[in-house]
Amino acid sequence: MRPSGRTASQIRPVTITRNFTCHAEGSVLIEFGNTKVLCNASVVEGVPRFMKGQGKGWITAEYSMLPRATHTRSDREAARGKQGGRTLEIQRLIARSLRAAVDLKLLGENTITLDCDVIQADGGTRTASITGACVALVDALTWMRKKGILKANPMKHMIAAVSVGVYKGNPIADLEYLEDSDAETDMNVVMTDTGKLIEVQGTAEGDPFSFDEMNEMLSLANDGIKELFDAQKSALA
Amino acid sequence: MRPSGRTASQIRPVTITRNFTCHAEGSVLIEFGNTKVLCNASVVEGVPRFMKGQGKGWITAEYSMLPRATHTRSDREAARGKQGGRTLEIQRLIARSLRAAVDLKLLGENTITLDCDVIQADGGTRTASITGACVALVDALTWMRKKGILKANPMKHMIAAVSVGVYKGNPIADLEYLEDSDAETDMNVVMTDTGKLIEVQGTAEGDPFSFDEMNEMLSLANDGIKELFDAQKSALA
Amino acid sequence: MRPSGRTASQIRPVTITRNFTCHAEGSVLIEFGNTKVLCNASVVEGVPRFMKGQGKGWITAEYSMLPRATHTRSDREAARGKQGGRTLEIQRLIARSLRAAVDLKLLGENTITLDCDVIQADGGTRTASITGACVALVDALTWMRKKGILKANPMKHMIAAVSVGVYKGNPIADLEYLEDSDAETDMNVVMTDTGKLIEVQGTAEGDPFSFDEMNEMLSLANDGIKELFDAQKSALA
Amino acid sequence: MRPSGRTASQIRPVTITRNFTCHAEGSVLIEFGNTKVLCNASVVEGVPRFMKGQGKGWITAEYSMLPRATHTRSDREAARGKQGGRTLEIQRLIARSLRAAVDLKLLGENTITLDCDVIQADGGTRTASITGACVALVDALTWMRKKGILKANPMKHMIAAVSVGVYKGNPIADLEYLEDSDAETDMNVVMTDTGKLIEVQGTAEGDPFSFDEMNEMLSLANDGIKELFDAQKSALA
Amino acid sequence: MRPSGRTASQIRPVTITRNFTCHAEGSVLIEFGNTKVLCNASVVEGVPRFMKGQGKGWITAEYSMLPRATHTRSDREAARGKQGGRTLEIQRLIARSLRAAVDLKLLGENTITLDCDVIQADGGTRTASITGACVALVDALTWMRKKGILKANPMKHMIAAVSVGVYKGNPIADLEYLEDSDAETDMNVVMTDTGKLIEVQGTAEGDPFSFDEMNEMLSLANDGIKELFDAQKSALA
Amino acid sequence: MRPSGRTASQIRPVTITRNFTCHAEGSVLIEFGNTKVLCNASVVEGVPRFMKGQGKGWITAEYSMLPRATHTRSDREAARGKQGGRTLEIQRLIARSLRAAVDLKLLGENTITLDCDVIQADGGTRTASITGACVALVDALTWMRKKGILKANPMKHMIAAVSVGVYKGNPIADLEYLEDSDAETDMNVVMTDTGKLIEVQGTAEGDPFSFDEMNEMLSLANDGIKELFDAQKSALA
Repeated sequence: MRPSGRTASQIRPVTITRNFTCHAEGSVLIEFGNTKVLCNASVVEGVPRFMKGQGKGWITAEYSMLPRATHTRSDREAARGKQGGRTLEIQRLIARSLRAAVDLKLLGENTITLDCDVIQADGGTRTASITGACVALVDALTWMRKKGILKANPMKHMIAAVSVGVYKGNPIADLEYLEDSDAETDMNVVMTDTGKLIEVQGTAEGDPFSFDEMNEMLSLANDGIKELFDAQKSALA
Repeated sequence: MRPSGRTASQIRPVTITRNFTCHAEGSVLIEFGNTKVLCNASVVEGVPRFMKGQGKGWITAEYSMLPRATHTRSDREAARGKQGGRTLEIQRLIARSLRAAVDLKLLGENTITLDCDVIQADGGTRTASITGACVALVDALTWMRKKGILKANPMKHMIAAVSVGVYKGNPIADLEYLEDSDAETDMNVVMTDTGKLIEVQGTAEGDPFSFDEMNEMLSLANDGIKELFDAQKSALA
Repeated sequence: MRPSGRTASQIRPVTITRNFTCHAEGSVLIEFGNTKVLCNASVVEGVPRFMKGQGKGWITAEYSMLPRATHTRSDREAARGKQGGRTLEIQRLIARSLRAAVDLKLLGENTITLDCDVIQADGGTRTASITGACVALVDALTWMRKKGILKANPMKHMIAAVSVGVYKGNPIADLEYLEDSDAETDMNVVMTDTGKLIEVQGTAEGDPFSFDEMNEMLSLANDGIKELFDAQKSALA
Repeated sequence: MRPSGRTASQIRPVTITRNFTCHAEGSVLIEFGNTKVLCNASVVEGVPRFMKGQGKGWITAEYSMLPRATHTRSDREAARGKQGGRTLEIQRLIARSLRAAVDLKLLGENTITLDCDVIQADGGTRTASITGACVALVDALTWMRKKGILKANPMKHMIAAVSVGVYKGNPIADLEYLEDSDAETDMNVVMTDTGKLIEVQGTAEGDPFSFDEMNEMLSLANDGIKELFDAQKSALA
Repeated sequence: MRPSGRTASQIRPVTITRNFTCHAEGSVLIEFGNTKVLCNASVVEGVPRFMKGQGKGWITAEYSMLPRATHTRSDREAARGKQGGRTLEIQRLIARSLRAAVDLKLLGENTITLDCDVIQADGGTRTASITGACVALVDALTWMRKKGILKANPMKHMIAAVSVGVYKGNPIADLEYLEDSDAETDMNVVMTDTGKLIEVQGTAEGDPFSFDEMNEMLSLANDGIKELFDAQKSALA
Repeated sequence: MRPSGRTASQIRPVTITRNFTCHAEGSVLIEFGNTKVLCNASVVEGVPRFMKGQGKGWITAEYSMLPRATHTRSDREAARGKQGGRTLEIQRLIARSLRAAVDLKLLGENTITLDCDVIQADGGTRTASITGACVALVDALTWMRKKGILKANPMKHMIAAVSVGVYKGNPIADLEYLEDSDAETDMNVVMTDTGKLIEVQGTAEGDPFSFDEMNEMLSLANDGIKELFDAQKSALA
């Protein structure tokens, strides 16, 4: 039994609120149960130096947890003077995933930054960030088309992400903090709405996992992500 | 005339939402019009090294703006690797103001950190932070009393803050961004609900200001802050 | 009674030595009693990136205390790898104050940096810095006019600064360290020689202060600053 | 056809040289073709603060590429003043993988640091690092047993790692740089010699990948890693 | 001919002012011509961690140039966030030299920090720093003896330093900036008043130098340093 | 007697392996007994900003010790976030020495970076670095001539370096770690193959040294360096 009483394949209620703040070109608050992440998409003309002159755009991401998003307060990274390894790892994952959703040539020499700031954390902040950032990205691209910056829609497909894991010996979907901190295996899966994989990151926190468990987790992820695509579609409708 | 049509002494609508997030001992979202700041109070046993052995508590604060809280995206301080001068100046002001509201001896050797994270900015983020942090602080102290950590209430008085300024030659209260960026003088005033001053920080951005203008601004601040105390009381009722 | 035997309104003896070092375009050693600050003005062609193309100049400031300017040695900020909040706050105040003294358009696209290095500290280092930097700035502008860089004098008015406070219940002027560390309220006031205010920064270190005390402090500041303008004039004669 | 003429499942020649340097408790130079990584294991008594008093040991890792390990020189991280996101991500992976190979309770309150320094890079530096570090770890544990520090062998199983990917539409094993920089999908797999998975990290660099491709890559990894276990065994014989 | 008209062996006028500031246990302003360095000695009980429990004291040094000590303003190291290589090299030299003058056992577990801040630079700042710091050190040790902290005088011998070089083909002593920036060879020599060498650091900036030139420079240094010992003695008399 | 049984003037066996890694334009592993340093020379078109437009090239160096090059592991500088004073001092010495070997005008506006990474340390790492880097530099210049980047050979003379010292009262050459850590005086000497001096850096670690000892050490250095030039010649033959 899961602490919340959920079934093994049951993901938490998902809420997607667009236009959560007023300045960003795309601004989405996404909630996976008690996990709440603000995903802002900012459009800037031009690209970083290493991309210049290729006629292509760039998508990057930054991730942060507010110090008291968690049970006990963690140090503010700006005050410590550097971003931790976990933060860098997550924001690299978010950026890579979103870039895989977009035709950078159609984006032209423009940069979109996706800021994912975790307001409240209860497991799954990186998968919520990716799923919410995709909606904020759609809104930012719509804004660009309205402004006449883009001629065609650079979006190749929607993407969404869910965590899966092995908890007390059973594969389950969308782990909350209590499960996550106790799971034998933790895996994050990013997929396209065309049913393909963008990222698979599985880690044995305790015992190693078998190929069978791997397949069961992938199957749970596949099912859970379908529900996320439905939530994205409803929000964007 | 002010851009919003407000009168010179009219402050923006104030909204105070308690328990905005679930982990912090005090968690308040405060809104001054379009300015929205999340103020979380975190309680930790013990005090910083320089305070040890004095039998007194400590109150500190950290302030940050989400990168896209503003019209154009600003760099994330954690990524740049240091907090800017404006950030340090503001969080020193918030901490100093809140310490002036509390009897540190009655707090015992405990530390309360007030994290003020600006979700959306439209002028007055430091005064909203102070006003909201005071409510979060009250909730954190109540939590401590319920836990039996405190014997008496360390709160000496409520505090609140408002900005005033000289805009197009006229003293006005609670400047929004459009006014703030164009004001000749900008002043932040922090007061107690016993009618006394905690901080006065006035700066001539353009022409210097006269003693008369100074007095008019202080009078506007005095009136505006009274309304903030009312909003705090309603929220805490 | 004040530790030094001074009356409430009496400021310390002020000494202003011009051309204290030989390389800077303006170089002033200012002494407020035992507080000694070296204020060097450096002229450079061009302006920071954010000011380019506006046909205006820029004035900036840096402040530092030598490690053993104080009773006990404090860490060298260069060795710690960052400037503290107090340092940043003070140098922002100095720069803002001096910019308010100058017509930046008449300065042309040139930058003047005011380095205020405290050789010996006994309270009032920021007000001594501002008062001395104003004289160094005048010398640097004179140097620029002699070099033919400036056509007109960009100086709008002289500025000077003094600290005031409430010490053992009484408002006093120009606090030395012993008073400063024990004062209930500490206020720094920057004024023009035309009798107007540039900056007012008052802080309740202990009990909050009343509007009456505020007015008494401002009046003491007004009187003290007049003597500083006399000292500046004598030095520049 | 692969640039090297290898078959899809063929890994590069593997060389493992023990005692490559004289000071470390375990010192291994591992070569995967032209990729050469020096893996040093250092034993220190005691554990980091967050582990104290649990009666358990700790294993950590640091990864670095010499500036000219690559075709063009990259900046030295020590000179830039921080480790990049890629470096942090890799050393977190190495440490996590090796911790999964060891019973930390049997290690006692001791720390082993695995320094993986890439002397020459040609793809697969992180998988070579993990495979070589495992041998260095065995040597360090043997040293500890000889010194009487350990009563039992904390090694639960050997681990090894290989990269797999989709290159020009075909799944292949052990990508060299030319293949890696051009692959549609890149996946790193860490396994135990008991046939289970420790880490799976797959990323679509170009087109997303299908569940079938995922399975083919896992199968190639499984085969390749078996050869690595043979090479480890020969080296340790 | 030298720019100043000095003979090859002639050092600049030396002025040593003790008690230049009021807080430090030893405070010396030393002038080698236009080069002016403030040398403050600070005494603190205890030693750094790596020295604890050995019953010995420690002497360390920090060196800095005020930004406008030079012809053109250089960046403030505290603002840049790190000390440059030249600064670190010089302060290591100063500390090493002064440690060689003292019996650290007789110093007990106390630390003396020598802060050498260059007020005005015209060549030879490191040799002036060492020569002045030695006098400040004597004053600090005297202060310690008066306080009863020391039973015996830990000073083994006085030390002093001078720069020598090859300028336009001729060995000369005590180079000023104009000579220093144009010299083929630059050498700094630190000696004891017992006629022995503490440090010799010679560098070919242009052409390499011969063993004969090396000996001539050492001979000039030997003569110049004797005059510095005289200046130290007079100052301490 | 020396710990190794060497005579006072006897240097350790020297091994120079060219083309140690495959990417760098010059790549040399140099061994002085158990000290092993990898010296890579990297050629880049263009020069640093401060050299631009002078028609001259630039040579720079970076030095690092792998964390476990030594008996006990030292912190990785990249992880600590800054290079230590010793590192900066050594890499400044290496760069200065190599620049003295080259006619920068004949190098054209190109930059060569010499990375000296210590794989294993047993004293003399800086002198081995200089001696090995000189060979790597020759290889890089040959590569440039073959590529048609250079018209003439910019090498003015070969350089090499050896450490000498006073150990148990006797001058000796090429100190290994056991001797170095116990020596009264430590001196590094860099020379040209034309018999002239580039750098002399002598330091009294214990007792000061006499002019006679200085001369004896220089004489030992002169002899030892001749053997190093022979080793360089054989390697380059």
